[in-house]
Amino acid sequence: MSGVTQLATAAQAAARRLGNTSTRQRDRALLAMAHALISSQDDILAANAKDMEAAKAKNTAASLLDRLELNPARLKGMSEALKALAMLPDPVGEVVTGHRLPNGISLTAVRVPLGVVAIIYEARPNVTADAAGLCIKTGNAVILRGGSLAIESCLSLARVLAKAVEGAGLPADCIQAIESTEHAAVDELMGLHGLIDVLIPRGGAGLIKSVVENAKVPVIETGVGNCHVYVHKDADPKMARDIVINAKCQRPGVCNAAETLLIDDEIHDKVLPPILKALEENGVTVYADDKARALGSITRIQAASEDDWHAEYLDLKIAVKVVADIDEALAHIAKYGTKHSEAIVTEDYQASRRFVDEVDAAAVYVNASTRFTDGGEYGLGAEIGISTQKLHARGPMGLAALTSTKWIGLGSGQIRE
Amino acid sequence: MSGVTQLATAAQAAARRLGNTSTRQRDRALLAMAHALISSQDDILAANAKDMEAAKAKNTAASLLDRLELNPARLKGMSEALKALAMLPDPVGEVVTGHRLPNGISLTAVRVPLGVVAIIYEARPNVTADAAGLCIKTGNAVILRGGSLAIESCLSLARVLAKAVEGAGLPADCIQAIESTEHAAVDELMGLHGLIDVLIPRGGAGLIKSVVENAKVPVIETGVGNCHVYVHKDADPKMARDIVINAKCQRPGVCNAAETLLIDDEIHDKVLPPILKALEENGVTVYADDKARALGSITRIQAASEDDWHAEYLDLKIAVKVVADIDEALAHIAKYGTKHSEAIVTEDYQASRRFVDEVDAAAVYVNASTRFTDGGEYGLGAEIGISTQKLHARGPMGLAALTSTKWIGLGSGQIRE
Repeated sequence: MSGVTQLATAAQAAARRLGNTSTRQRDRALLAMAHALISSQDDILAANAKDMEAAKAKNTAASLLDRLELNPARLKGMSEALKALAMLPDPVGEVVTGHRLPNGISLTAVRVPLGVVAIIYEARPNVTADAAGLCIKTGNAVILRGGSLAIESCLSLARVLAKAVEGAGLPADCIQAIESTEHAAVDELMGLHGLIDVLIPRGGAGLIKSVVENAKVPVIETGVGNCHVYVHKDADPKMARDIVINAKCQRPGVCNAAETLLIDDEIHDKVLPPILKALEENGVTVYADDKARALGSITRIQAASEDDWHAEYLDLKIAVKVVADIDEALAHIAKYGTKHSEAIVTEDYQASRRFVDEVDAAAVYVNASTRFTDGGEYGLGAEIGISTQKLHARGPMGLAALTSTKWIGLGSGQIRE
Repeated sequence: MSGVTQLATAAQAAARRLGNTSTRQRDRALLAMAHALISSQDDILAANAKDMEAAKAKNTAASLLDRLELNPARLKGMSEALKALAMLPDPVGEVVTGHRLPNGISLTAVRVPLGVVAIIYEARPNVTADAAGLCIKTGNAVILRGGSLAIESCLSLARVLAKAVEGAGLPADCIQAIESTEHAAVDELMGLHGLIDVLIPRGGAGLIKSVVENAKVPVIETGVGNCHVYVHKDADPKMARDIVINAKCQRPGVCNAAETLLIDDEIHDKVLPPILKALEENGVTVYADDKARALGSITRIQAASEDDWHAEYLDLKIAVKVVADIDEALAHIAKYGTKHSEAIVTEDYQASRRFVDEVDAAAVYVNASTRFTDGGEYGLGAEIGISTQKLHARGPMGLAALTSTKWIGLGSGQIRE
C-alpha cells in the first residue's frame, strides 16, 4: 500500500470514530485547534519562512507571495475563525425529514458526515486551517493537499492541528496532509474510490479541469467564474456604474468578480461612457466590441476577440459588449458563462423575472453585485468553496454541504408484503 | 460532432426551454405520454417482439426474458405510472430556504431542474418510460441508453414518448435514446462534461463500476447491495426468522434483498435452526461458517468462503456467520457491506442505538426488513434509483433528487463593501 492509500485508509478508520463523537467533543477540538495555532506560532512561522524564501528564489509574483505569507496577525485570524466555527450550530444529527410509514415504521432522514473529504488547493496556507476546521466541525476526516509553494506551511499547520485534535480526544488521523508535492500523489488520491467520499479541488481552472476529468471519486467542481453584469435599457445609470465597478474592482482576483459587461444598444451611448470612465479611473483595461470602442471615451480600451468573451481574467480587465436586447444578453451568458454568478441591472419587472428564470447559474442577482456569492455574505457562517456544478451543492457551500443523510427505520417486526 | 455529442447538444438546448415551462405544461405532457403508450401499443409491442425473438435466439435466461417482455397489461401499468407522476407535487420552483440579508438583499434558494440527465440501464424496457416521466416531471431533458437486449423496445418507447411530449408543446429533444448499442457510445456519453449534468447508471455491479471509473461527468452511483440482517442476542426469535425470510426471499433479485445473515454466538444454537429450516423451505442455499454448519439441521448448506461475505447473490442464496457480539457484527458490516441497507433484530435499546449510529449505510433498520429501502415504500411517490454514494442523494431518489437549486438575490443597488 503506497503512501497516499495508507493515509486514506487511516482517514477512513478515523472518520468512523469521528462520525460518532458528540457536537461538544468536536467543538472542544476546534477550540484546541484555535489555541494550538497561537501556541505553536513559532514552528508555523518558521516553516512559512522556508516557503517564502524558496518562493522568492523562484521570483514568485508579489501577489502570490502575499497570499503565501503568514504572520502573527494572520494566524490570529485563522485561530479566531476556528473559534467562530465552534460557536456555529452542528448540522450533524439534524433530522432533515421524517414520518411514520403506513406500516408503522418510524422513518427519519438524519444528517451524517460525508466520511473522508479530500481537498486539493494552491498556495494559500490559511485554507489548511479553514478546511480542517470545517471538516472537524462536520465530523469528517480530511486529507489536505496544499500547493508545492506552500508545502512547508501546510504540513506544519496540519501537524499542529492534528496534534491539537488528538489532545482533545479525537483520532489524530482526522487531519492529514499529503507530504509529496509530486503530481503522482494527486493521481493516486483521485483514484481512491471507496476510500474518499468527496474530493474538492480549490484553485485555478487547470487544476479543477484535471480533477474533473481524471477522478474516479465523487468530485465537487468549484469556483471557475466568468461572471457577467448585464445593464438593461431600463437600468438606473448610476446604479449600473456602481455595480459594474464593485463587481469588477472590489477584489478582481476572485471567482465572483465580473469579467464581462453586457449593455443594451438603446442606451449604450449614454450609459456606457461614465462606466468606461470609472473603469479607467480604477485602473481597468477594457476589451470592447466595435460599438463600445466607437464611443472613444477612454484610452485603456482594446478590441475584444472571441477569447475575451470566454476569459476569466481574475485581474483588472473587463470585456464589454453592446447587445441588441435581453435575448442577446441571455444567449451570450448561456454560451460563455460558467454558471457561477450573473447580474442584471434594470428597473423593469419583466426583464428582472426573465433574467432570474432563464439564466442557469449558481447565483443570479437583480440590481446587486456578483461579489455577494459568498458563504459569509449569505449568512452560512462558513464556506468550504463555491460549487459551480448542480449535483449535491450549488453556490457557496456551508457546513450542510459537508454532510450526507442516513435513512433510519425503527420498526416492530415489519416485513414487506 | 458525432452522434451522441449531437444528441446531447440538442438535449441541452431542449432542457433550457423545458426548464422554464410551467408545472401545468409538464403535467399535460406526462398525460400525453401516458396516453401515447396505449394508442401506440401496436408499434411498441411489435418492436418488443423483435427484441424477444432475438433474445430467445441467444438462449437468454427465462428470468431475463420475463423482464424484457412487454404486453398490454404492462404497458397499461407504465401508462398508469405516468398518470400518477402527473398528480404528484412539482419540486421545481420550491423555495428551499430564504432570508433577507443585513444589506437588504432578498435571498432565496429555489429548486431548479438539473438540466440534462443521462441514464444507462439494462434489459428492462419499462425503465424507458419511468425515467422519461421522472425527468419530464422535474423539467430535465433525458438521454436514455437501454441495454442491447431491449434496444428495439427502448427506441420505440422513446420515439412514442418524444412525439407525445412534442404534441403537448414541449421540445421533442427532451426525450432522446441512443441508437447505437456499441460501448463506444457509452464512452462518448461519459465524457460529455459540460453537456450532461448527471449520469445515472442502473444495472449490474460491472456497469456501475465502469461508469464510476471512467465518467468525466457527475455520476450518481446506484444500487449495489450486499445487505445484512444481524440477529442480536436479545432478538425475538420469531421476528428474526420472519425478517430474514422476507429480506432474502420476498424478491431475491433486487438490491435491497439481504445477502448475509449475522447472528450472535450466545443464541445461535437456539435461534438459528428454525431460520435455517425456513430458508431451506423457501429454496435458499446457505453458505455458512463452521459454527452454523455444525448445527447440521438442513441439507442445502455449504461451507462459506471469503467470497461469500463479499457476494451480492441476487438469488436464493445467503451467507450465514455466527459472530461473538455486536462489535464483530458492526466490524463485519463495515468491512463487507456496500452501504446500502442494513438491519438489526433486537429488543435491546442500547444495541439498537449503536447499530443505528455506527452502521454507515443509506438505510439502517431496527426490527424491519431491508426490503423497505424503496421510493414507493418511503412515500417519495416515485423513484429514479437508489443511491449508494453520499453525495447529492442517498438511498431512494425521488423527484427532489432530480433537482438542483439556484440562489436568487433581489437587490436595490447593493455593492459589497
